[in-house]
Amino acid sequence: MRKPLAVARRANVQPFAVMDILQRVADLRAQGRSVISLCAGEPSGGAPLAVSARAAALHSSSMALTYTPPLGITALRQAIAGHYKRWYGLEIASGNVAVTTGSSGAFMLVFLAAFNPGDKVALARPGYPAYKNILKALGVEVIELDAGADTRFQPTPAILDAAVAQHGPLAGLVLASPANPTGTMVSRAELSALTRWCADNGVRLVSDEIYHGITYPLPDAVDPQGVCAWELDRAGVVISSFSKYWGMTGWRLGWAIVPDDLIQAVDALAGNIALCPPAPAQMAALEAFNEQSYAEADAAVAEFSRTRDYVLSQVAELGWVDAAPADGAFYFYANLGPALAGFADSAHYCAALLEDAGVALVPGSDFDGVGGRSTVRLSFAAGYDAVREALARTGEFQRTRRG
Amino acid sequence: MRKPLAVARRANVQPFAVMDILQRVADLRAQGRSVISLCAGEPSGGAPLAVSARAAALHSSSMALTYTPPLGITALRQAIAGHYKRWYGLEIASGNVAVTTGSSGAFMLVFLAAFNPGDKVALARPGYPAYKNILKALGVEVIELDAGADTRFQPTPAILDAAVAQHGPLAGLVLASPANPTGTMVSRAELSALTRWCADNGVRLVSDEIYHGITYPLPDAVDPQGVCAWELDRAGVVISSFSKYWGMTGWRLGWAIVPDDLIQAVDALAGNIALCPPAPAQMAALEAFNEQSYAEADAAVAEFSRTRDYVLSQVAELGWVDAAPADGAFYFYANLGPALAGFADSAHYCAALLEDAGVALVPGSDFDGVGGRSTVRLSFAAGYDAVREALARTGEFQRTRRG
Repeated sequence: MRKPLAVARRANVQPFAVMDILQRVADLRAQGRSVISLCAGEPSGGAPLAVSARAAALHSSSMALTYTPPLGITALRQAIAGHYKRWYGLEIASGNVAVTTGSSGAFMLVFLAAFNPGDKVALARPGYPAYKNILKALGVEVIELDAGADTRFQPTPAILDAAVAQHGPLAGLVLASPANPTGTMVSRAELSALTRWCADNGVRLVSDEIYHGITYPLPDAVDPQGVCAWELDRAGVVISSFSKYWGMTGWRLGWAIVPDDLIQAVDALAGNIALCPPAPAQMAALEAFNEQSYAEADAAVAEFSRTRDYVLSQVAELGWVDAAPADGAFYFYANLGPALAGFADSAHYCAALLEDAGVALVPGSDFDGVGGRSTVRLSFAAGYDAVREALARTGEFQRTRRG
Repeated sequence: MRKPLAVARRANVQPFAVMDILQRVADLRAQGRSVISLCAGEPSGGAPLAVSARAAALHSSSMALTYTPPLGITALRQAIAGHYKRWYGLEIASGNVAVTTGSSGAFMLVFLAAFNPGDKVALARPGYPAYKNILKALGVEVIELDAGADTRFQPTPAILDAAVAQHGPLAGLVLASPANPTGTMVSRAELSALTRWCADNGVRLVSDEIYHGITYPLPDAVDPQGVCAWELDRAGVVISSFSKYWGMTGWRLGWAIVPDDLIQAVDALAGNIALCPPAPAQMAALEAFNEQSYAEADAAVAEFSRTRDYVLSQVAELGWVDAAPADGAFYFYANLGPALAGFADSAHYCAALLEDAGVALVPGSDFDGVGGRSTVRLSFAAGYDAVREALARTGEFQRTRRG
């Protein structure tokens, strides 16, 4: 007699609303509809030319692409360390650099190495949902910090003190600057206050810096690429990636800067759970650090900046509220305000906008289980012309359609 | 005042002895020593030519390689389903195929989806250490099944009954056929008995079939590539990979065949923990399923077979015992027998063999924490000439040196 099999409780992960939307985008396009998708969290321009060329040469040579060491080839770990010198003036030993399978691979490794089941780890709400879902899958208790437009959607020592008062001691804090979905950043002073708070409270900081370099600083900014957490304290973990600034999302290559007390654990775990990051991507990514590749990436950022300015110029007219102008990344996150009138929530607004106007946005519920029913995330990575057309359609939709 | 930070208990993963050996191999070679490494669990021949060519073309086109769906591009899921038709005559829906970041990525996803913390999952000892280490990191209790040369290092219903009697009900069984480190396989009848036992006992079978196709069947064998667990029961999970038969280890591309009750959980988890498998590898791997690529892979297997025959011909002379001739994969696992005399354990034997004779083997302790002190694993993936020279050196070492 067959006995029933279980599905693990931790597999009960909330599906993303954006997945249904992306499927509907594909269906509508298959029907011949003109659809502009502002859903994607990825640049459309692709990798620097030299990176692609190296990859092509590598494959043309038909060399066997075998396993690399679990934390990546030495040359790449050294090149990444050099990148920290270039951008932040930081001296980092290549032995503290762990190359990973995207930043996703870094989060998994670091969360496993740093946090025990039952530990409490705090993160801002709204926020990138995968942090929460990975932590929960690993038995870590997630403490959501209600971070609103008043703190530009970022946590503060006061918010953290309140969380500790309510929930007890924290083991970790996941910070994202620039953040997804809001694009807001913490300043050097704010990050300094947070790293001090972490040090005082025995909290491991995990600093997600994957959008560094995609920033919109004032001309005289002291930290044009963002402030790296290791400039202030080397007890935390810095996570970054080739996906965003260098436009290499599908390559699945990222890294973590790992403090001495965790690096052995991360190494041992990496050898078991991933073996190694993709070898061809590692070898090709060596070309990301030459002058031409930086110049290409910076040109893509300049285009994002132009598009961002356009988005900001249109907000008042759309009537969206509570937005913080993105300091970085390529997102705009806002409360729909009066435009929500007649819709049950922003998911319904997004569904109608897609059907009627052929514009795809992500409803805020994917990032905020509490306040996200009124908000949307717009990605302007699709480019200036696409965003301009999408916002024109959205304005027209809002003028003519009430849910 | 700075408070101390924790390293997670689950990060306490036993390092592999092979890692030190590989480092020593590199050091010796850097000194100009001639070293033959029979450590690697990977073919040295590389990917099929058409796969490499597709990858090169892809990168030459400078197309943006962006995220794919979490479970892979549809064309690849379909092609993998087609592969099951070709090899096993199985009709599998592409919706049950989850493309993953190597088989490592598949194990992580499937273990998360199928097993709760505290569940008991059984696996054979000796075995591939990553199963055990991933499961432990996820809070699953590992029940090691003492599987010796008498059952050709594979579990049986009797062994499983004894494990349940001792430890209580199991939630899962990880089976590997061909196995690492032994290369032994279960026959159709044996696998049938195991799937029936799993069904009767409410146990989820996770069938590691990554070495399928690298097999040494008799001319009239009914299951020349191995028996797929889904031929017998679709309640379990089948895991496989492009790494071994197609020689694509560093590409990090594998898959799982996932039953209906788990596929949604695997999909949601994949979107959170990995986003997607490497995009260029996915697109290039479409070329793995053409006739020429199968022919190239089969030619590599024929070379493994020739090398395997040579290894088997030398065992008696080396005096190694308790080996089961590998039915598949490219491993030979044996007790050193009289050759161990004078050495504290096989790790010391391996260290001396490396220093004195320039031959690198993996000590059994990496695969068996109990009996592995007397055993070694030899990988003959290095090729006929390398293995022939290595065994000549090993014989000479054993004749002249006593630890």
